[in-house]
Amino acid sequence: MNWKEVDQNHIWHPFGPLHGLEHLMVESAEGIYLNLEGGRKVIDGISSWWVNLHGHSHPYIADAIAKQARSLEHVIFAGFTHEPAVRLIERLVKIVPGKMQRAFFSDNGSTAVEVGVKMAIQHWHNLDIISKKKIVILEGAYHGDTFGTMSLSGKSSFYKPFFDYLFEVEVIPFPDKDHEQEAIERLKEICESGDLGVFVYEPLVQGSAGMRMASPEVFEVLLGIAKQHEVICVADEVLTGFGRTGKFFASDYMEIKPDIVCMSKGLTGGTLAMSLTMCNEKVASSYETSDKSKTFYHGHSFTANPLACAVANASLDLMERTTTWDSIENICRLHEKAATRFRGSDKVSEARSFGTFLALEITTDEGTSYFNNLRDRLYEEMMKRDVLLRPLGNVLYVLPPYCITTEELEHIYSMIGEALEGI
Amino acid sequence: MNWKEVDQNHIWHPFGPLHGLEHLMVESAEGIYLNLEGGRKVIDGISSWWVNLHGHSHPYIADAIAKQARSLEHVIFAGFTHEPAVRLIERLVKIVPGKMQRAFFSDNGSTAVEVGVKMAIQHWHNLDIISKKKIVILEGAYHGDTFGTMSLSGKSSFYKPFFDYLFEVEVIPFPDKDHEQEAIERLKEICESGDLGVFVYEPLVQGSAGMRMASPEVFEVLLGIAKQHEVICVADEVLTGFGRTGKFFASDYMEIKPDIVCMSKGLTGGTLAMSLTMCNEKVASSYETSDKSKTFYHGHSFTANPLACAVANASLDLMERTTTWDSIENICRLHEKAATRFRGSDKVSEARSFGTFLALEITTDEGTSYFNNLRDRLYEEMMKRDVLLRPLGNVLYVLPPYCITTEELEHIYSMIGEALEGI
Repeated sequence: MNWKEVDQNHIWHPFGPLHGLEHLMVESAEGIYLNLEGGRKVIDGISSWWVNLHGHSHPYIADAIAKQARSLEHVIFAGFTHEPAVRLIERLVKIVPGKMQRAFFSDNGSTAVEVGVKMAIQHWHNLDIISKKKIVILEGAYHGDTFGTMSLSGKSSFYKPFFDYLFEVEVIPFPDKDHEQEAIERLKEICESGDLGVFVYEPLVQGSAGMRMASPEVFEVLLGIAKQHEVICVADEVLTGFGRTGKFFASDYMEIKPDIVCMSKGLTGGTLAMSLTMCNEKVASSYETSDKSKTFYHGHSFTANPLACAVANASLDLMERTTTWDSIENICRLHEKAATRFRGSDKVSEARSFGTFLALEITTDEGTSYFNNLRDRLYEEMMKRDVLLRPLGNVLYVLPPYCITTEELEHIYSMIGEALEGI
Repeated sequence: MNWKEVDQNHIWHPFGPLHGLEHLMVESAEGIYLNLEGGRKVIDGISSWWVNLHGHSHPYIADAIAKQARSLEHVIFAGFTHEPAVRLIERLVKIVPGKMQRAFFSDNGSTAVEVGVKMAIQHWHNLDIISKKKIVILEGAYHGDTFGTMSLSGKSSFYKPFFDYLFEVEVIPFPDKDHEQEAIERLKEICESGDLGVFVYEPLVQGSAGMRMASPEVFEVLLGIAKQHEVICVADEVLTGFGRTGKFFASDYMEIKPDIVCMSKGLTGGTLAMSLTMCNEKVASSYETSDKSKTFYHGHSFTANPLACAVANASLDLMERTTTWDSIENICRLHEKAATRFRGSDKVSEARSFGTFLALEITTDEGTSYFNNLRDRLYEEMMKRDVLLRPLGNVLYVLPPYCITTEELEHIYSMIGEALEGI
């Protein structure tokens, strides 16, 4: 069999039908470029699903992996520890907002959020408070595809086959500029019922729902209400962490901090699957006992994998370079200008930018939705121009690796302009 | 801060209390040895939580990672594919039992099983069969710690704080030699209700429950009943895959094959977090449509990470060497002999071996349980002798990397003998 047959017959790619899709062969990648079979080069305009920070196959990161693989590739993380994990957590404790006290490792964004929610639920259990069982989420939430994180979507139509297996959550509106007051009122109501224990949210930017944005001010109010009612606040920073918003974390924009922060994607610079769930002293304290019934019984085999930790440390080294932050600021500035320009186009019903996110809602009669048919046409038009963008329905967005240059970014904007003309 | 302070104050290790535990610093590892700070060497007698196959920091695997990191560290796996993934699946399609047709990547054992169960549930949904909603599991099952996999434990006491958030499953006895008939009868009863859609099981060896073992014959009967009632059979081979049982997969011991196989741990030779869920044509066929409501909406950012795939290929290369299978056979033989010897000890109430598993139930007044207090004493007695074994309650087991020599294995048995004398 040739590779195409193997791929088409035997590989089940994520989020796609088993029927009629062809996948392009990537031979190598460097910086922002994916090098396809036959010499074609495609710009990775979405950082390979929002994970890549410093460009592909970065030599500094490659060296860190190679070195780690020769000395300690992996070891059980119960009873034992190792320098790559200790060094990583020592650094993150200083960076992650909210005076985070404890770090729990797992392998991906879904498990990071499952761990966060479990930590919060068991926190109340450990304190013998049985009333605070309710969990509240934001409408349009996406936290992953496991049963727990599917439940946290508030029964998104994505998950229809699994509705009977999901637990119930309360839902408040996403507090974008048209729904701020409604979200605040609804959260207050739920809080006043007294049985709300956990608030899970994507801070400031809601990714899969279409790169929706809300203001730090309204999040400040929501977090204030939750904290006032002794609700554990779990920030899903899987997408927004590690510079994406222009600050290290989206939670850095608010004065009121989460109790639990979930990280993945950018944690390893987009190199390896790893995630972290960090909590503050308030949450951790209810577990600080030798009572075995209060132990957090959760673990994955590859917890704190030394290779992934070494890579995360290497990525943090690169994050410490001023040139990285200069690049991030440059992207933020260029995105803002581009958003202003795109607002003038009749093909764009809304243009918004925040940090390294630029999102364009493309005019359509169908209404904004992930299933909007414009999606496939937009994808193809951009791929024709050798730029990978992966629209969320009719929302076209750019979220590039930080190493992208002004010229490369202007090129993407100009290709979008061209593509929109044909739509 | 020194590393001990960082570790004790800030790192939350899996499955352990936050209080009073000290973790040993592993500086490097080679073959079966963990090299601790200060020059101490400890034998990794449990393959670092059942993952390591070929010994630590294996140079062949280290070279494969280093090479891959310089050309393609990661790329989005929707719309794109790459040679390390294609090569891996081309090989596994030939090896994994049950004529597996499609492979879906995720990151750990929990997600591999969640994906497997979701595939099975949505299979019935896609066929518009709404009756087959029930899931059956084996008593004592452990499939992971996410909400879905916690549900598949049948409300193990581990997960008490989360009971209100778990879905219901049916439970049949684990079919060890004392419960074969009971398990068969119970499964028949549930099948005859007509609404059973999915059977999830650890084939032949149930790990966390205390390395419990059942015969291929009884599994053949159970699988036969399930198949006869059109139940999708999901084999969790996370622990038992990749040679652990003396064959490539535990399912190789039975004539009747699963519809879905879940793999992780040994998949990458124990190097990196990755998992696979493979299904046969029967399951896949219900997804082979362009109807978007029948698409499997599941994905993780690091799906089919090229580094992890490269490592999995390197591990398969090592599995293809006859010396690896010679070593596996040697372990099987030595374990069997050791089990016979240990049966003579009054400290051992039961000794069993199967493949590369050796399990000893240590005599206790408390009854066999994960929470048995003997656990900590046994752990310490073995660590005093520089052998890492991690008893499951009063069940002491050995599950070594395949590169272990006869002398090293005999040394472990002899250290166990010594330790038991002091118990």
